[in-house]
Amino acid sequence: MTTPKPNQMWGGRFSEAPSDIMVQINASIDVDKRLYRQDIQGSVAHCEMLVAQEILTADEGDKITKGLAAILAEIESGKFVFKTELEDIHMNIESRLAEMIGDVAGKLHTARSRNDQVATDMRLWTKQALAALIEEISVLQSILDKQSGAHAETVMPGFTHLQIAQPVTLGLHLQAYFDMLERDKGRFADCLDRMNESPLGACALAGTRHNIDRDLTAEKLGFRRPVRNTMDAVAARDYLLEFLSASSICIIHLSRLAEELILWSTVQFGFIRLGDKFTTGSSIMPQKKNPDAAELVRGKSGGIIGNLMQLLMVMKALPLTYNKDMQEDKTPVFETYDALLLCLQATTGMIDTMHVNKERMHEDAESGYSTATYLADWLVKNLNIPFRQAHHITGQIVQAAEKKSLKLHDMPLADMQQFESRINKGIFDFLRITGNNS
Amino acid sequence: MTTPKPNQMWGGRFSEAPSDIMVQINASIDVDKRLYRQDIQGSVAHCEMLVAQEILTADEGDKITKGLAAILAEIESGKFVFKTELEDIHMNIESRLAEMIGDVAGKLHTARSRNDQVATDMRLWTKQALAALIEEISVLQSILDKQSGAHAETVMPGFTHLQIAQPVTLGLHLQAYFDMLERDKGRFADCLDRMNESPLGACALAGTRHNIDRDLTAEKLGFRRPVRNTMDAVAARDYLLEFLSASSICIIHLSRLAEELILWSTVQFGFIRLGDKFTTGSSIMPQKKNPDAAELVRGKSGGIIGNLMQLLMVMKALPLTYNKDMQEDKTPVFETYDALLLCLQATTGMIDTMHVNKERMHEDAESGYSTATYLADWLVKNLNIPFRQAHHITGQIVQAAEKKSLKLHDMPLADMQQFESRINKGIFDFLRITGNNS
Amino acid sequence: MTTPKPNQMWGGRFSEAPSDIMVQINASIDVDKRLYRQDIQGSVAHCEMLVAQEILTADEGDKITKGLAAILAEIESGKFVFKTELEDIHMNIESRLAEMIGDVAGKLHTARSRNDQVATDMRLWTKQALAALIEEISVLQSILDKQSGAHAETVMPGFTHLQIAQPVTLGLHLQAYFDMLERDKGRFADCLDRMNESPLGACALAGTRHNIDRDLTAEKLGFRRPVRNTMDAVAARDYLLEFLSASSICIIHLSRLAEELILWSTVQFGFIRLGDKFTTGSSIMPQKKNPDAAELVRGKSGGIIGNLMQLLMVMKALPLTYNKDMQEDKTPVFETYDALLLCLQATTGMIDTMHVNKERMHEDAESGYSTATYLADWLVKNLNIPFRQAHHITGQIVQAAEKKSLKLHDMPLADMQQFESRINKGIFDFLRITGNNS
Amino acid sequence: MTTPKPNQMWGGRFSEAPSDIMVQINASIDVDKRLYRQDIQGSVAHCEMLVAQEILTADEGDKITKGLAAILAEIESGKFVFKTELEDIHMNIESRLAEMIGDVAGKLHTARSRNDQVATDMRLWTKQALAALIEEISVLQSILDKQSGAHAETVMPGFTHLQIAQPVTLGLHLQAYFDMLERDKGRFADCLDRMNESPLGACALAGTRHNIDRDLTAEKLGFRRPVRNTMDAVAARDYLLEFLSASSICIIHLSRLAEELILWSTVQFGFIRLGDKFTTGSSIMPQKKNPDAAELVRGKSGGIIGNLMQLLMVMKALPLTYNKDMQEDKTPVFETYDALLLCLQATTGMIDTMHVNKERMHEDAESGYSTATYLADWLVKNLNIPFRQAHHITGQIVQAAEKKSLKLHDMPLADMQQFESRINKGIFDFLRITGNNS
Repeated sequence: MTTPKPNQMWGGRFSEAPSDIMVQINASIDVDKRLYRQDIQGSVAHCEMLVAQEILTADEGDKITKGLAAILAEIESGKFVFKTELEDIHMNIESRLAEMIGDVAGKLHTARSRNDQVATDMRLWTKQALAALIEEISVLQSILDKQSGAHAETVMPGFTHLQIAQPVTLGLHLQAYFDMLERDKGRFADCLDRMNESPLGACALAGTRHNIDRDLTAEKLGFRRPVRNTMDAVAARDYLLEFLSASSICIIHLSRLAEELILWSTVQFGFIRLGDKFTTGSSIMPQKKNPDAAELVRGKSGGIIGNLMQLLMVMKALPLTYNKDMQEDKTPVFETYDALLLCLQATTGMIDTMHVNKERMHEDAESGYSTATYLADWLVKNLNIPFRQAHHITGQIVQAAEKKSLKLHDMPLADMQQFESRINKGIFDFLRITGNNS
Repeated sequence: MTTPKPNQMWGGRFSEAPSDIMVQINASIDVDKRLYRQDIQGSVAHCEMLVAQEILTADEGDKITKGLAAILAEIESGKFVFKTELEDIHMNIESRLAEMIGDVAGKLHTARSRNDQVATDMRLWTKQALAALIEEISVLQSILDKQSGAHAETVMPGFTHLQIAQPVTLGLHLQAYFDMLERDKGRFADCLDRMNESPLGACALAGTRHNIDRDLTAEKLGFRRPVRNTMDAVAARDYLLEFLSASSICIIHLSRLAEELILWSTVQFGFIRLGDKFTTGSSIMPQKKNPDAAELVRGKSGGIIGNLMQLLMVMKALPLTYNKDMQEDKTPVFETYDALLLCLQATTGMIDTMHVNKERMHEDAESGYSTATYLADWLVKNLNIPFRQAHHITGQIVQAAEKKSLKLHDMPLADMQQFESRINKGIFDFLRITGNNS
Repeated sequence: MTTPKPNQMWGGRFSEAPSDIMVQINASIDVDKRLYRQDIQGSVAHCEMLVAQEILTADEGDKITKGLAAILAEIESGKFVFKTELEDIHMNIESRLAEMIGDVAGKLHTARSRNDQVATDMRLWTKQALAALIEEISVLQSILDKQSGAHAETVMPGFTHLQIAQPVTLGLHLQAYFDMLERDKGRFADCLDRMNESPLGACALAGTRHNIDRDLTAEKLGFRRPVRNTMDAVAARDYLLEFLSASSICIIHLSRLAEELILWSTVQFGFIRLGDKFTTGSSIMPQKKNPDAAELVRGKSGGIIGNLMQLLMVMKALPLTYNKDMQEDKTPVFETYDALLLCLQATTGMIDTMHVNKERMHEDAESGYSTATYLADWLVKNLNIPFRQAHHITGQIVQAAEKKSLKLHDMPLADMQQFESRINKGIFDFLRITGNNS
Repeated sequence: MTTPKPNQMWGGRFSEAPSDIMVQINASIDVDKRLYRQDIQGSVAHCEMLVAQEILTADEGDKITKGLAAILAEIESGKFVFKTELEDIHMNIESRLAEMIGDVAGKLHTARSRNDQVATDMRLWTKQALAALIEEISVLQSILDKQSGAHAETVMPGFTHLQIAQPVTLGLHLQAYFDMLERDKGRFADCLDRMNESPLGACALAGTRHNIDRDLTAEKLGFRRPVRNTMDAVAARDYLLEFLSASSICIIHLSRLAEELILWSTVQFGFIRLGDKFTTGSSIMPQKKNPDAAELVRGKSGGIIGNLMQLLMVMKALPLTYNKDMQEDKTPVFETYDALLLCLQATTGMIDTMHVNKERMHEDAESGYSTATYLADWLVKNLNIPFRQAHHITGQIVQAAEKKSLKLHDMPLADMQQFESRINKGIFDFLRITGNNS
């Protein structure tokens, strides 16, 4: 009696080998080999539980865990040879284990299925990914906080409709992003909390008749508890959809900031100059200093949101429990993680190294009649004019100022009085911008 | 001094009237009139705060709040006339207020902008929507729980790849959806918790020089606290994206259940019969009993996920703070709420009234060699054969049974012994399905 | 023998009435009443064919077509009462017909099903919609052409990465959009050509045993020919997906132009001033002139692309032939048509009425070292320096000019010669911008 | 004078090197090296044109084209070393050319920019991709045609709402997919026709002052003509959006067929048995024969549609002309091409090797009262009963048959006459299914 050849692991009753096309469409090893560490971690916990439950002997368990440790070392040192014909990371590792320790390797898969195995691997990976993203957001927030503090008094125009609206400070502006990112962190933390359950032991879909201890493996792997329902354990992908949703919302925030960095570093705005470390030149226009990193952060919103759409589309209307379609869950999740991490780092770098042109910002804050609201407020406060009428009067004064190409604080008092005779000199205190307007 | 005409609220300095196309593309009243209750609620709280801060007199405040109450009554009784030329719900109400109480109406908009006003309206609405969805999910869960209990012993085939895999119970199957929905509720609750802050007082983007009390309006409106950053308050839409994401994940769950109801009610499966109340007939094929409600639940996943895509697309790369693009946030959110609520109710109705064909379910649970796993487990447990080899032997026995068109528990012992001589009679206890296999 | 009550059209064998939820989720009349004209047009053609084939008598046909004409008149004059309990436009019209002309109305549905009926209505509608969009694009193109001609010599900076790259003309810039729109028209025309086939006569999915003439109805309705395969005729929605795709690509083009109009009308760019007819003011900032129409065109890309996502999601993995999910095809298509038409009209209006600030454009075209490429080209042409080295030398000269805050054509010859001694006076002819640079 | 180091190609005026994050986010070589053949093809054509226009000497041109040929050989033999620090395929090749042939390599980039270079590469690649997909669809069609012919008389149930509706043939059913695919081919062909223009010579965005011949390079590269507008030439991505849209519609068709293959190969339907070459087994359930290939085809709709959403999102609201975001166009296009090609091949294989169970199909075609429509038609034809009433009577007969658990053709005549006394024996000819019902 010999261990069957690895490529026959499921092939016992098949009379024909899979076609090349089938091998190609079916193989996932190029993608899921990234889970090698989690796969081995899960197998070790499973093996230790089998020993604890006396399903395996201590000796068998010892051989298996030592074999797995050796395989981990092989992979991390780059010596391990991944084989496409072994389909996925699970079979690549199990097959190598069989080579190393012989038939006893075949006992590892007792009371387990690839369905709960891959579900466990993926949850372990996602937990790490979530923690890493939360950490990286905190780094970006600390840089935003630093710049926000440094520019607490730096006056700049606040925009609505990309038209100058009212003076604000750069500190206030950057702090808005700090707060958006705080909510992004909250979403990732909520996702982590909700998905922190162990699917191991659900087997294919219905648990097992072996006397396993799911609480024990959950504990060994750092999960809060086992997933209650075994069918849910292998069929659920909502935790990945939630991960992709939170990532999509986060990249929307980064895309908004990127857009502003691009605008602000145009010749026309001239509010900032991005550091050389995060810009590139042109092959034909030597003077160009292109905000490539910001453009790529903005553009990578496409891939991240496309990945969310991908998995939503994949999962739509799939009956329980596992369907092979779900194999398509890994690429979007891995790609999103990589892209979002990189975008967070690039944004951190850009904000950290940008040079702010305070003069240009202040100058623009004064243009565009940005203090018109203050004028209206003055009319309300001092002349007790209802706001709607004060607003109307202000509109007429602005129009008059525009015709004379004057800023509001340069308008002669007499000109203003044409629209409301009670206006007096006190109004000029309201029409000039100071550092702490907002 | 007269109140300016409503359609000149912002038109003070414009020399030309908007084109018809502009009126048409710009108007939002058809959509945002749904916010009338929240708009009045927000205005009342704002007015009371203005009085408390002595920005308005008690008498002015009284006139305004009474006027607003009268308008609310008009709208709810269907007497209010909404006007497209007044653009949106805010101006429709304010204009009517001016008709009712005269110039003092113009004082309500003191220390407020349409930017923070609409942000407040929308948050108030979303809070109610989230609560209603959580409630509706609970109703569906209670029905799933009821059926799950009633069918705790109803054996049915468990599927992977839509192939019969192992016997499960209908109770276990329905409970899996109960658990998915529990996580959906968690996502809505997290969203509600995170967005429960008041944007009122942020004004256009930079707050106001009037001495307002944002804590007071937040408290009056039932918010936990004011949104800290005024620019964030008017620019943020992540709470709506989170609402749409959570809804998308929830409808994915409902689409999976709907798919199963459709499959199960085919002639071929015959597992269930949906109630007449949730099916329709055909205009040409009188015998048809179509699972329309289930198909519509499945199909409405498209609209709900399309709405998520819509708002992500709208928000991508928008600079701070308010941009008119954001007006496009309401339709997708309202549509998603209506569709999801209806889908939850329809699913509740279908699950509640479906008739289960236990015999068909049990029959199928026995076909497809669904107990093969148990055979493999028996080999492991009783003969100490490593799982991988037990699996291989089982595959050969299944192939032999299939050739003879026999179910596993009908295979002669001798036939099984051809593949593993130590197999004995005890194996038959494992090959038959009982009510509590899983 | 009496005509059955309308709400029993398919209910012959049902023992229970549909629940309220079912009525609500199932009804489509609010959406598909928009198809009334096409529905009647299709019914008239069908009826005439039935007469021609002697399935109906001439007298019966006459009664039916006159009845349909009367119903059309009722609908267009607003007298027709649409009823939700009659579900859809087909049953609303058929029921009214029965009221008008009695039992003979029941003969109209001979050799027809709602499946081929709605497919015919929708194709007729889509043909008109495609033609209308093509027409509207041509209108926008004519305005782009006019402005392009008027500004053939208007120098402006050409951008890459939103950095000033090289001088171009506004004419060239606007012509780029003309050409994009030309391809958009091509896509709509291709779609129209491909879908111009009649599904009528496919009945539910399998044709009919009645001796109908599908070529005749196709001809009467202006289709090129019948859809060949009857199952395809009722199951296909690719023509709507193609419509939504072409619309999505078109709105992407409009969103790019809208973004530029928004940028160009900022205080910082100041390249254009949008007409009052297509801008709005602010309720609190009287000086604002907001490019609302452009922002809404940009924002409506979300809805249009969301609609594409919706129908792709709906159609994914639907088995043949008709499934109720497909009822969800109409809302996205109608919404997309309305939104795209409006966006085309608004863009036409904005381009037509914008005021161009030639001075600001020309001034910016000279800044940012936009002629650096010409300098490099001069080195290649006159000194036979390989382009890559010419590029490197140019980069050094630009850096030197920037340090001195000089434009390139103001750099002293001696300074340039420090980097390449053979540079001579001739270079200055290359460094100034003229109207016909590009 | 020496050629500058490759990594300084655009870095002439930069005082700081890019950060590691910048290198990582900016590099595209891992993706765009796939364009090596097109890049060299484009460079050869460009070089030959420069010689023809006497911008390069024949000798220079000869050195360059020989060098490029040598590089092509290096890449195809796997000897070429791609370097991340050289960013992209263009610079990798140009840098190697400089190593091989010295300074003259720097002359190749005369009158060219990376913007028009990459646009040319991508269009050349896309043309090949479109042609390959059209070819692969034809292969699938030929297999559908073969099976369709073989099963022209194989009766099966036609479904609406996944309920048995009327008998059809498998031939008709498969032919419906043939016709859908014919339209898919049309969409790819239209896309190819529309985008078959050469961007080469547009340079960065504004053409060049060198005396180039764009018609000549267009002709050499097999394009119909140059892209007219130089800004459009480098800014347009609609041809890729059209490619992704057509691919999305095509995969929707394949997902529908895949869904049917999965359904049909369930134990419950049992209509077909997929070949061993396109199915897999289970690691724990040895009897399973999983339709993995079909599930993956269905699931890959997610990735393909996600890619469309990605590029739509990327392109939304990008101002002219080139923005770095657009670098994100290649991954979705390459991935979609690979996935769609594989799905077409897998579908071809599955359809070609599936085994049809004619008996099960025929049996089901007779169940579910699938001939009820014929009964209604008989009443119309023979008794001149209006269709709507015939339909109602039929519904009552079906309900009666169902209560007795009889098929329609087994219902006693007397039972039918209870609902319509004029029914006679002739009706039974209508109630049995023959091979050519449809």
